[in-house]
Amino acid sequence: MTDHRRLRVALLGAGAVGSQVAALLLKHADELADRAGASLELVGIAVRDLDAPRETDLPRELFTTDAESLIVGADIVIELMGGIEPAKTYLLQAINSGADAVTANKALLATHGPEIFDAADQVGAQVYYEAAAAGAIPIIRPLRDSLAGDRVRRIMGIVNGTTNYILDRMDTEGADFADVLAQAQALGYAESDPTADVEGYDAAQKAAILASLAFHTTVPLDAVHREGITSIDKATIDSARHAGYVIKLLAVCERLDAEPGVDGQESISVRVYPALIHRNHPLASVHGANNAVFVEAEAAGNLMFYGAGAGGVQTASAVLGDVVSAARRHIAGGVGVAESTRANLPIVPIGHVTTRYQITLEVDDQPGVLATVAGILSEGRVSIATVEQTVIDDAALGVPVARLVIGTHKAREQDLSDTVDRLAASGVVERVVSVLRVEGD
Amino acid sequence: MTDHRRLRVALLGAGAVGSQVAALLLKHADELADRAGASLELVGIAVRDLDAPRETDLPRELFTTDAESLIVGADIVIELMGGIEPAKTYLLQAINSGADAVTANKALLATHGPEIFDAADQVGAQVYYEAAAAGAIPIIRPLRDSLAGDRVRRIMGIVNGTTNYILDRMDTEGADFADVLAQAQALGYAESDPTADVEGYDAAQKAAILASLAFHTTVPLDAVHREGITSIDKATIDSARHAGYVIKLLAVCERLDAEPGVDGQESISVRVYPALIHRNHPLASVHGANNAVFVEAEAAGNLMFYGAGAGGVQTASAVLGDVVSAARRHIAGGVGVAESTRANLPIVPIGHVTTRYQITLEVDDQPGVLATVAGILSEGRVSIATVEQTVIDDAALGVPVARLVIGTHKAREQDLSDTVDRLAASGVVERVVSVLRVEGD
Ligand SMILES: NC(=O)c1ccc[n+]([C@@H]2O[C@H](COP(=O)([O-])OP(=O)(O)OC[C@H]3O[C@@H](n4cnc5c(N)ncnc54)[C@H](OP(=O)(O)O)[C@@H]3O)[C@@H](O)[C@H]2O)c1
Ligand SMILES: NC(=O)c1ccc[n+]([C@@H]2O[C@H](COP(=O)([O-])OP(=O)(O)OC[C@H]3O[C@@H](n4cnc5c(N)ncnc54)[C@H](OP(=O)(O)O)[C@@H]3O)[C@@H](O)[C@H]2O)c1
Repeated sequence: MTDHRRLRVALLGAGAVGSQVAALLLKHADELADRAGASLELVGIAVRDLDAPRETDLPRELFTTDAESLIVGADIVIELMGGIEPAKTYLLQAINSGADAVTANKALLATHGPEIFDAADQVGAQVYYEAAAAGAIPIIRPLRDSLAGDRVRRIMGIVNGTTNYILDRMDTEGADFADVLAQAQALGYAESDPTADVEGYDAAQKAAILASLAFHTTVPLDAVHREGITSIDKATIDSARHAGYVIKLLAVCERLDAEPGVDGQESISVRVYPALIHRNHPLASVHGANNAVFVEAEAAGNLMFYGAGAGGVQTASAVLGDVVSAARRHIAGGVGVAESTRANLPIVPIGHVTTRYQITLEVDDQPGVLATVAGILSEGRVSIATVEQTVIDDAALGVPVARLVIGTHKAREQDLSDTVDRLAASGVVERVVSVLRVEGD
Repeated sequence: MTDHRRLRVALLGAGAVGSQVAALLLKHADELADRAGASLELVGIAVRDLDAPRETDLPRELFTTDAESLIVGADIVIELMGGIEPAKTYLLQAINSGADAVTANKALLATHGPEIFDAADQVGAQVYYEAAAAGAIPIIRPLRDSLAGDRVRRIMGIVNGTTNYILDRMDTEGADFADVLAQAQALGYAESDPTADVEGYDAAQKAAILASLAFHTTVPLDAVHREGITSIDKATIDSARHAGYVIKLLAVCERLDAEPGVDGQESISVRVYPALIHRNHPLASVHGANNAVFVEAEAAGNLMFYGAGAGGVQTASAVLGDVVSAARRHIAGGVGVAESTRANLPIVPIGHVTTRYQITLEVDDQPGVLATVAGILSEGRVSIATVEQTVIDDAALGVPVARLVIGTHKAREQDLSDTVDRLAASGVVERVVSVLRVEGD
């Protein structure tokens, strides 16, 4: 090891991720110093409870409950506490005292990103957040740097491991949502309160971060349309399989062309929902708790980034990569590069989005019903691509009922949902079983 | 568009990649300026023949045959001529005159990388080469930055599109090597002289670049063990399929632990050869001319990067990403970050490498032959995992012959090849049909 300049590193949080970051910083100190061109001196670790057990073996004297004193004089501050406050206050304090900041805090960046990036820009500091979008998968640098000379058309991400694990097991084992969720909780794949995952909140935060980068546009979290997976049952999965699809919770970030004839601007759509995807699409083979981000760019074509989207030690890898980058920048000098949000494209509501759909209906099994349904779709500007009708042999339903699975051509979401309302009210439709978007082509 | 500082960009070469880079620089000038924080002024394009037809529509007045004058005063020089000279002279001239350099030239970097990086380091310039390792797939930044805090154990890359296309068609269509190669040439997927691709030279250059980055070690091209795919025939592919494998030309970059008991150092191995890979490994589903790089890291776990490994416009995306990075660095100030080669691990010859093997033999169909073969393997420290024996019903062979397909446990390459020599000389083996490594587990 060469003689290096020393950089003071302060760590806030020693939970699942922070305890691994601290352990790796200490264990690989020499190697990291060689790579960074500076020795990374861990000056302290702020926690709430000094006596709490830690997942890795760390020197007691590093721990403190006084985060603010730790930040003063640090060159690099790593925020791994999570939540909005006090994480935000500490991060701003770090930036304003001249440190570079590293964080994995997707909740914070998705809600207060612009304020934090502006503060960094004011003082020429840099905020690194590779771990905030897809855990260990390097996706921030590819979007921010590698694709900076290209134009991203669309991102489709499987960015939540818990929901992918649940949907994958439902698909491969024919199990029901509640059973798989209970098992996932027992195995530690899902939290005891699974809302953030299964209702798509976690994925929506990541979608906001990915879309901001890909489209050089500030994407507020409330502009992200969000639906979870709790309504996906065994029957929906089976019917998807039957049609050659698999269901994935997708974060879709899409560039929309200016409306033809209007002297308008491009816009973007950012949305999270369970969608059908063809079994031969690369995203269909992302199993278990793995994540993947599929990027369609104008020049580069289709790219996919695959790996672990969470996990303490996996996420620590991404955090440490950011720490090395921050150290190299300290050595090289110069100011930080501001987030590129100059495009600021308008974000359209979900009603303006165009996709394909699969509509599953239970209808009266009588002559003329298909014609009525087809007529309502056509009036609603929803064009039919495929229809499959099966008679349901269920005495409990009383009347003879048929199931219609309709695949549509691309339709506007607003037209589609108006049309589904009209179908539901038509008198011939007993039940709208499901309406799912089809992505990936 | 905001008012920006102007940076002078010189382009050397307007072939498959350069003509696309020039077109995109001009077409997206405003957008690129917003992202880079500087307007990128294309000051000229150096070519050999001013009158040659170009793939994109470019202003005639930009063209010149005087590359040297173009370089003088440029802030960013993009080298897309290919070959060693004069590319190397021009690149060094650019660096020494204070410009940042962008290149896609894998041949040059794999042979003269250290000299070029040293020159850049001397003057605080930066060399960007995202397009040199896997075309449009962002892999340089992930290895150099995102994984800088982790330890890469192994990389397995499908980094040559031509050979992947050939092997994939042989696999899916049962076609023979020569036929598919001829078709690939007709379709423009393979060059009229296919040596660089099918003999693994192109993949070896990329392997050297990837291993240098992953292991922070200078890897000279002649330290890369290289075998091509010309010996892979239909029978080999069929027998691989039968055993649940697919054959891919892999660039393998591997970290080897210090030998147990020796107070030694870790070492690395870099090799390119056709290998068997399980059909459920993510690399097995990389079809056609696509590329993918599979990375196993200690903390991050398994990652995969997938996309187009070549193509003029795809590669131009990676080049332009580098141009934007170079521009941002110019704006931000500071010196370039030197290549991290401080680990300088020893590179072991192929004989020291340990993998699994599949050995296919034609043996006399007589009692005791299997025992003899098993004895020779065991003496040679090659342990058998699976054996399959089939009788070959071929009158032309005269004597009754059986085919033995032996899967081994992990064995040392030197032991294996000595053992295969002994098998060949044993008197019971009629023919060593093939010896293939098995990778990916
Ligand atoms: N876990 C993952 O797989 C993963 C993946 C990607 C991103 N992330 C992100 O990484 C961040 C950290 O996640 P985590 O799973 O490591 O969280 P965690 O296990 O809950 O750990 C949080 C840590 O922060 C400390 N802390 C909380 N509030 C504090 C305060 N007011 N003052 C001082 N210390 C405080 C806690 O101290 P005590 O231990 O004393 O309570 C604990 O050590 C979050 O933003 C999360 O979204 C996590
Ligand atoms: N093509 C791909 O898909 C791909 C993918 C990854 C990386 N790369 C790398 O990118 C680089 C460029 O590849 P390419 O396919 O674009 O090559 P190319 O089509 O052969 O183009 C080479 C260009 O360089 C010019 N040139 C050659 N020697 C010159 C000299 N002495 N002075 C001035 N100009 C000279 C040529 O001028 P004229 O046109 O006047 O002859 C031509 O415009 C290579 O290093 C290659 O390995 C290519």
